[in-house]
Amino acid sequence: MATVEMEDFSESQLWVLIILMLCGGEVFTSVAGLPFTKARLEREGSTADAIIDIGTLPTANMDERNRLRLKFDAIRYLGYAVLGYIFVINLSGFLSIFLYLCVVADARDVLRKKGLGIGLFSIFLSVSSFANCGFTPANENMMIFKKYSTLLLLIVPQILSGNTLFPACLRLVIRCLGKMSGREEFEYILGHSEAIRYKHLLPPARCVYLALTVVAFILVQFLLLCYQEWNSEVFRGTSSYQRAAAALFQAVNSRHAGESVLDVSKLSPAFLVVCVVMMYLPPYTYLVPGERDGWPASMETKERRFLWSLNLSLLCYPVIFIIIIALITERKSLLADPLNFNIFSVGFEVVSAYGNVGFSLGYSCSRLLKPDSYCKDASYGFVGRWSNKGKLIVIAVMLLGRLKKFQMKGGKAWKFS
Amino acid sequence: MATVEMEDFSESQLWVLIILMLCGGEVFTSVAGLPFTKARLEREGSTADAIIDIGTLPTANMDERNRLRLKFDAIRYLGYAVLGYIFVINLSGFLSIFLYLCVVADARDVLRKKGLGIGLFSIFLSVSSFANCGFTPANENMMIFKKYSTLLLLIVPQILSGNTLFPACLRLVIRCLGKMSGREEFEYILGHSEAIRYKHLLPPARCVYLALTVVAFILVQFLLLCYQEWNSEVFRGTSSYQRAAAALFQAVNSRHAGESVLDVSKLSPAFLVVCVVMMYLPPYTYLVPGERDGWPASMETKERRFLWSLNLSLLCYPVIFIIIIALITERKSLLADPLNFNIFSVGFEVVSAYGNVGFSLGYSCSRLLKPDSYCKDASYGFVGRWSNKGKLIVIAVMLLGRLKKFQMKGGKAWKFS
Repeated sequence: MATVEMEDFSESQLWVLIILMLCGGEVFTSVAGLPFTKARLEREGSTADAIIDIGTLPTANMDERNRLRLKFDAIRYLGYAVLGYIFVINLSGFLSIFLYLCVVADARDVLRKKGLGIGLFSIFLSVSSFANCGFTPANENMMIFKKYSTLLLLIVPQILSGNTLFPACLRLVIRCLGKMSGREEFEYILGHSEAIRYKHLLPPARCVYLALTVVAFILVQFLLLCYQEWNSEVFRGTSSYQRAAAALFQAVNSRHAGESVLDVSKLSPAFLVVCVVMMYLPPYTYLVPGERDGWPASMETKERRFLWSLNLSLLCYPVIFIIIIALITERKSLLADPLNFNIFSVGFEVVSAYGNVGFSLGYSCSRLLKPDSYCKDASYGFVGRWSNKGKLIVIAVMLLGRLKKFQMKGGKAWKFS
Repeated sequence: MATVEMEDFSESQLWVLIILMLCGGEVFTSVAGLPFTKARLEREGSTADAIIDIGTLPTANMDERNRLRLKFDAIRYLGYAVLGYIFVINLSGFLSIFLYLCVVADARDVLRKKGLGIGLFSIFLSVSSFANCGFTPANENMMIFKKYSTLLLLIVPQILSGNTLFPACLRLVIRCLGKMSGREEFEYILGHSEAIRYKHLLPPARCVYLALTVVAFILVQFLLLCYQEWNSEVFRGTSSYQRAAAALFQAVNSRHAGESVLDVSKLSPAFLVVCVVMMYLPPYTYLVPGERDGWPASMETKERRFLWSLNLSLLCYPVIFIIIIALITERKSLLADPLNFNIFSVGFEVVSAYGNVGFSLGYSCSRLLKPDSYCKDASYGFVGRWSNKGKLIVIAVMLLGRLKKFQMKGGKAWKFS
């Protein structure tokens, strides 16, 4: 299996990629599902018709027929609206990138040196960003545009509108269309999101939570990146504004998109752990203080709280402590002594402490990159080599692990069935 | 914060540790909670009495009183049974270890060289194993007893009876006591596990599932350890029987106990990942094909299935693929090139693929431990350096990540509220 770099692709191959990205994108494939939904509803509808025909009043029959027709029309209109949305977003993305490249000669030169046409590049980048593919025609992904902050900021809405913010944008678009056209189909779409069975159509409250969660996640990553990397190698030679724009771009991309303006391997371990969590979260994750719009309707508050606490403790506690340790207490050791101190070994000790097990990977002087004659192997565990603050955190983790039952109604809440 | 090795403790300090381990153990502290449960039930009972006094028949009143008395007696008997259980298990553990050390001169010599008395050592090891503390008075933990398989096998039931198998053992003990004494209190305990509110008292079906899960988990780890390490350094100089016993001992200890007969840092990365999962699982985790005894009672099958799939995909898929990659496809690279290939970097790529993000830590020739003039940096991601099989697995992970919605009813099932 030969491994190919992006610049090995010919122009026509790039066009094929553009078409694949366009048609394979999450939003586009979801539209393709709408005719099937309609057909299924029609089948169900005709059964309902048959039942109605047997013994109800003609007026009720007419009402029912009108209701069904409205529903089918609404689904058709929704399909058009989404297709229009895809077209408009991609077109505006292409135009804005293209215009930027026309205006800024430096950025154009970067592409010219690589032999990439600005038209093809603009289309490719626009489609790839909206479909959240994360490809760019350049080998270095977006790293060559680290200093072209405006370009990065132009792509950010492109990425968000095709992924995490799509449900919110879709609702907004349909509301606008409804206001402008005055057609009742759009009203129906907004009011009957469940009947239409289109998974990107979420109730208003959920759209708000979703948008807030997206903003919060981006903010956390942005601040962490700025705090950790502001003066580090990855930002060398850039102004403050350029750093901020690049950090924002990187933060937006860690959810699904995957374009990269910074060298990921050079980022700090603490950010990488956050990055793993962010990559792992599905696009429509959101955190709410209390569920309002009732999914799943049959679940009671208790169960929902349980779910929340399950997820919280299952994933969060160890991850939070690993981040704190990698970020603050053992930061220097992680850089200087990576064979002993790495994210996995720190994570192993934290999980071992949280589970009250006590296994340890230990510390070996033979794993030091530069041999140190003062280093002496000892029988105590790896944590014995940590800083005092790190040890205190592990003590806290052990206590927290011991008190799991109070957090979670005993072992019961942990059931995996 | 000075770090202390186990052999730095004096004999009297070891005694203090024994008392702390005995009184701080999960099972012992749970008995301490029983009087409080009884007091609470008595308060609730006296309120019930007051209600009954107002307007029911005297006979109903008497029945109610008798029922309450039976309940309180049952709680008292349960307390005695658990205390007796602790005493008998610790005593038999102590006696078996002590007798073994008396009979086997070699094992005695190991302790004599360290200046440890066999009586103190036996008590310490027995109490520590039952309470699942994972301490032994020797610096090397149990590694000095790698070849004393009988000793290891004697400790295994001690560990299991104090932790994962405690609910099953407790039910068995109470059933035996009931049969032998013929007292109705024991019958009441077995039949009314919920009314007694003792969290280690589980319904029979759950005890069976629990025991089966424990056996399955131990078996998986045992087989993986044997497959991975049979001819490796950690088992050097031991016979097949000794290897099997040590592997079993290590597998049992990864759930909560934490005594170690093998050098954890020298075990293969794939086993370490499994080990992290095992350490993380709470003691009473169990997997059942379909819930039978109704917890939580109000949850419907659909929600339960959702929970199951949530947990399965939240934790299992990436972990399974990381294990496969660390175990099979990139095994050699993980050993030879640990700064590029480590569990975190492999995990990063797998999560990135599963989330369809596409970030990569990349591969850098400068991170090779031994500089290689043939190594050339390239722009493609880290996976580009993997074996063909590894690449195919990552392709499968990406597809699986793309098809998440079919596994989980779309983004909805991922809600974190």
